[in-house]
Amino acid sequence: MSWTTDPVVEDGVSEREFTLDGAGGPIPGVRWAPAEGRVERRLLLGHGGTADKRADYIVGVAKLAAAKGFESVAIDGPGHGDRVEPARRPTSETFFQRWDEAGGTESIVADWRQTLDFLEADGGARPTGWWGLSMGTMVGLPVCAGDDRISIAVLGLMGRWGPNADDLVRLAPTLRCPLRFLVQWDDEVVPRDRCLELFGLLGSERKTLHANPGAHAAVPIGEVVSSVEYLDRHVQRRPG
Amino acid sequence: MSWTTDPVVEDGVSEREFTLDGAGGPIPGVRWAPAEGRVERRLLLGHGGTADKRADYIVGVAKLAAAKGFESVAIDGPGHGDRVEPARRPTSETFFQRWDEAGGTESIVADWRQTLDFLEADGGARPTGWWGLSMGTMVGLPVCAGDDRISIAVLGLMGRWGPNADDLVRLAPTLRCPLRFLVQWDDEVVPRDRCLELFGLLGSERKTLHANPGAHAAVPIGEVVSSVEYLDRHVQRRPG
Repeated sequence: MSWTTDPVVEDGVSEREFTLDGAGGPIPGVRWAPAEGRVERRLLLGHGGTADKRADYIVGVAKLAAAKGFESVAIDGPGHGDRVEPARRPTSETFFQRWDEAGGTESIVADWRQTLDFLEADGGARPTGWWGLSMGTMVGLPVCAGDDRISIAVLGLMGRWGPNADDLVRLAPTLRCPLRFLVQWDDEVVPRDRCLELFGLLGSERKTLHANPGAHAAVPIGEVVSSVEYLDRHVQRRPG
Repeated sequence: MSWTTDPVVEDGVSEREFTLDGAGGPIPGVRWAPAEGRVERRLLLGHGGTADKRADYIVGVAKLAAAKGFESVAIDGPGHGDRVEPARRPTSETFFQRWDEAGGTESIVADWRQTLDFLEADGGARPTGWWGLSMGTMVGLPVCAGDDRISIAVLGLMGRWGPNADDLVRLAPTLRCPLRFLVQWDDEVVPRDRCLELFGLLGSERKTLHANPGAHAAVPIGEVVSSVEYLDRHVQRRPG
């Protein structure tokens, strides 16, 4: 588990790749950070299904967060991105099957725990947030519920739905960190009612749902920007 | 229709009362404005059922808005506040009946049109927003749908429910202004599903729902503050 490239600076953001020795093979990741100034906070970015660690919106959120002094980290999800041959990457048709083949929820939680261990060993403990929608919530909800180091989350576009619906329903009430949960009112992938149901199950005392009209992938840009401002305002280490 | 008191300044906010000659008798109102500096925007505040123009949260929103250069105006709703003898003021038990006795939706829309006419005659046309929850949405949705001078709204805590449910359902698709709609997840007065249903019917292209855990009257303070920031960012006169 180590850095695999030197930092590359572009538009004031320093980008560097790393690889972790995962149980199921190498896990490629990217870290973005402000090129100048002190990094005091950390953001974990979970990409959506069939996308990867360099999806446009992942890079976009990383850059917005870098402007506020966050380092941001994304890894390829199980069976996604550089963890598989291009021909084996999931499509919307094979997504459910690939999730199970790649080891399901437990495997993903282990990957992220390892990622956070690596980052803490390298840069120390920092107040840490999670940002991930759709598969980024299928992954993020279990990760956040199982790791006290993550003190705030932006989740959404997910419900009692998909290959780990049972895990989500089981773990939702155990989540404790403050969170914002995004819903697309006309979601054609994850039905709105399933999303509302999952929001209702989340155990966090401080949770807010933001819903906008539009399809699954049509989250308004302003909502994305606002979600980073939310993390900026609220991320802090939990007492104790 | 005239001012009935001289301005009184407290904490940097100037407050002044007025009375309109309503079809059903005098309509008492209050205007709050920054004591210093130019007033360039206007906010109409609709109070909740059984409350009045000086409800704590109405005064609170007016003061938050004054700090951003808004004048804010509230009038007593039909059958509420100083429009009736104290013994005749509605309770949660008599609220439905009083609404109908007071003239229903049409009467309320007329009151607010008259209020806005008065304010424009006195201070000129200004970019104008609406803020009103619960009965403030029973009133505000018809008012905003019927008056192009209002270019943005904060609504919520209301659904296909109550004495003017049919009016709300009929007028919701005709609403065009950008809006934020607040829902309390555990609303014991207006069932959540009714609120979600009404949000879905609203015709505005730009509409966002914010939902938080808690009872009808337990909107988090941060959500109220954020709603004024939303108005501050977006209120503007419509083109044309």
